[in-house]
Amino acid sequence: MSEHKKSLTEVFNASPYPLAGHGKRNMQVLKNVFEQIDGSTDSDMYGKGAVIEQFEQRMAAYLGKPSAVFFPSGTMAQQIALRLWSDEAGNPKVAYHPLCHLEIHEQDGLRQLHRLEPVLLADKDRLITLEDVKQLQEPIACLLLELPQREIGGQLPSFEELAELSAYCRANGIKLHLDGARLFEVTPYYGKSAAEICELFDSVYVSFYKGIGGIAGAVLAGETPFTEQSKVWKRRHGGDLISLYPYIVSSEHYFNERIGKMALYYEQAVELASLYNEIEGVSTRPEVPVSNMFHVHIQYGKEQTEAVLAEVCSETGVGLSSYARELGERQCYYEVSIGDRYSLAPKADVQKAFQLLGEKLSKLSR
Amino acid sequence: MSEHKKSLTEVFNASPYPLAGHGKRNMQVLKNVFEQIDGSTDSDMYGKGAVIEQFEQRMAAYLGKPSAVFFPSGTMAQQIALRLWSDEAGNPKVAYHPLCHLEIHEQDGLRQLHRLEPVLLADKDRLITLEDVKQLQEPIACLLLELPQREIGGQLPSFEELAELSAYCRANGIKLHLDGARLFEVTPYYGKSAAEICELFDSVYVSFYKGIGGIAGAVLAGETPFTEQSKVWKRRHGGDLISLYPYIVSSEHYFNERIGKMALYYEQAVELASLYNEIEGVSTRPEVPVSNMFHVHIQYGKEQTEAVLAEVCSETGVGLSSYARELGERQCYYEVSIGDRYSLAPKADVQKAFQLLGEKLSKLSR
Repeated sequence: MSEHKKSLTEVFNASPYPLAGHGKRNMQVLKNVFEQIDGSTDSDMYGKGAVIEQFEQRMAAYLGKPSAVFFPSGTMAQQIALRLWSDEAGNPKVAYHPLCHLEIHEQDGLRQLHRLEPVLLADKDRLITLEDVKQLQEPIACLLLELPQREIGGQLPSFEELAELSAYCRANGIKLHLDGARLFEVTPYYGKSAAEICELFDSVYVSFYKGIGGIAGAVLAGETPFTEQSKVWKRRHGGDLISLYPYIVSSEHYFNERIGKMALYYEQAVELASLYNEIEGVSTRPEVPVSNMFHVHIQYGKEQTEAVLAEVCSETGVGLSSYARELGERQCYYEVSIGDRYSLAPKADVQKAFQLLGEKLSKLSR
Repeated sequence: MSEHKKSLTEVFNASPYPLAGHGKRNMQVLKNVFEQIDGSTDSDMYGKGAVIEQFEQRMAAYLGKPSAVFFPSGTMAQQIALRLWSDEAGNPKVAYHPLCHLEIHEQDGLRQLHRLEPVLLADKDRLITLEDVKQLQEPIACLLLELPQREIGGQLPSFEELAELSAYCRANGIKLHLDGARLFEVTPYYGKSAAEICELFDSVYVSFYKGIGGIAGAVLAGETPFTEQSKVWKRRHGGDLISLYPYIVSSEHYFNERIGKMALYYEQAVELASLYNEIEGVSTRPEVPVSNMFHVHIQYGKEQTEAVLAEVCSETGVGLSSYARELGERQCYYEVSIGDRYSLAPKADVQKAFQLLGEKLSKLSR
């Protein structure tokens, strides 16, 4: 019989101590929620009803905005936000980072469906600065900022820089939209409430399946005329489902469970990143995380690195990553997002895993 | 204390024997499903994974098409289908009925998002015929037919007419798309399988929360290059959610539970419509239903009719409708869709309700 060599993903998924995430994305995540729900609770109906309206009001208050709308996805919510600001300005140009979700993960929906004309600001490996905005050669309707900028490891401007950017946009008739897919996760670093951060923005999107660990779903918040118009576009997109409650109820459940843990996840990310940065040929981006996430850059090829990660995982039970992604010929990286699982791994095993990782990498040829 | 006069909706919702629908749209509908699911079952991930792929394959086979894609909504699925046929033909014109869902319930998404140019065929009160298509003054990329035509009570062409329409479209380079929101419900009348009906169409959408009674969700089926392209647009629309399983699993659960009951619902609709048609000033549309649904037209004003319906409901426990909709000054109507609840109403009570309805209406001034 041929022996099947297990892939890194298989080894990671079977490991007792994976260091990233809250847990497996299986149906227990939904079952946990609905076991506690009274079955006689009415469904929402096409955006109306207590279950959706109460959660929208709660999130509006949490984000410090007059109104909020629940969406099935951030893809839908953000395209619509930019479309509304563009229509209001009578200008199809909107600006965002070259690695913005809309630019790289949405099959160009913003251009194909909304005919907007994105202007890419900054380089792929750094954040957008006030200078970038000042140097724009043409008027834009809206600037989208993602906090933290996920595709470069979850980097953040300082709160002072952010306030300056916001003031400049307000003074120059540019609407500022927050891609807050991981907004909850950066509040501990800023030492600000979500509402204090959102005050700098005209519209805000947040997600419920990153740090919150829900099933799917998003909220778009802003002034009431803006959110009311967003509901019309939600219908046009096919997102005004007869029932969104499976996502709403689970979003609220896991929001309640985890919103108070964001500081813990952040501290744990800082701790874990420091372990990586002690190893020769390994560095994290950012070096000191500013949220629950960071990227691990490794100065060896993807195949070699995955083999080492699989060995470390098999020998210690500690899952560092389920994959590595190629980044040039002799370099690779992966993303780490801290969730509930990090606390479950015994410190001694984590230490042993990092010792082994260092030893095994040092034996590889660069 | 002031006495609150109960609305028809309140009386209907509290009645022991509502004659329409499967039951209340509350969260028990989801709980029933997930109580039976093994929590260790993996979620789908952005359209991939066993839970979504297996259901898509099953529905493709059921509809007799090579491939199928699960969508969160029919609004999204159908706009995308028409967009694909339009792009393929290089022609923005698509034809459908004036009371088509895309025309009256989607905030004009087809024009606003896809820039398609719908051509309205037939009058508002009748079905599209082959003559209508032959008399088109301009080429169209696609014709959408809704079976049954919901907004006129759920009417159907004969299967022979449908086959002629299909043959004409094929001979003339017109793609034929089926709005099969209630396709399952018309198979008993046609005496055909879903696949035999779908064979006449190039693309097919079906829904899982009408006769099937699921929570939300739809499938779009057709040739594989078509469905593969539809996935790209699903992503663009913001419908390619990380997890759609709450809708997929519930769709399959209730499909299994109710697909075999469509003939029963149809026969019960015929029975119930005949009771209505015995009453002076009341008629159903169609007179003899061809699916589980029909419209009840009443030759009295909305307010009077709702008062009578509430009295009948209070006195007999039989809920005929939760509303009536104005249709001119001295006319109103409502829709009835038969589901599981019809079988639960004692025949004697139903008879008494219709006797009372006749008596009370006859006392009203026209």
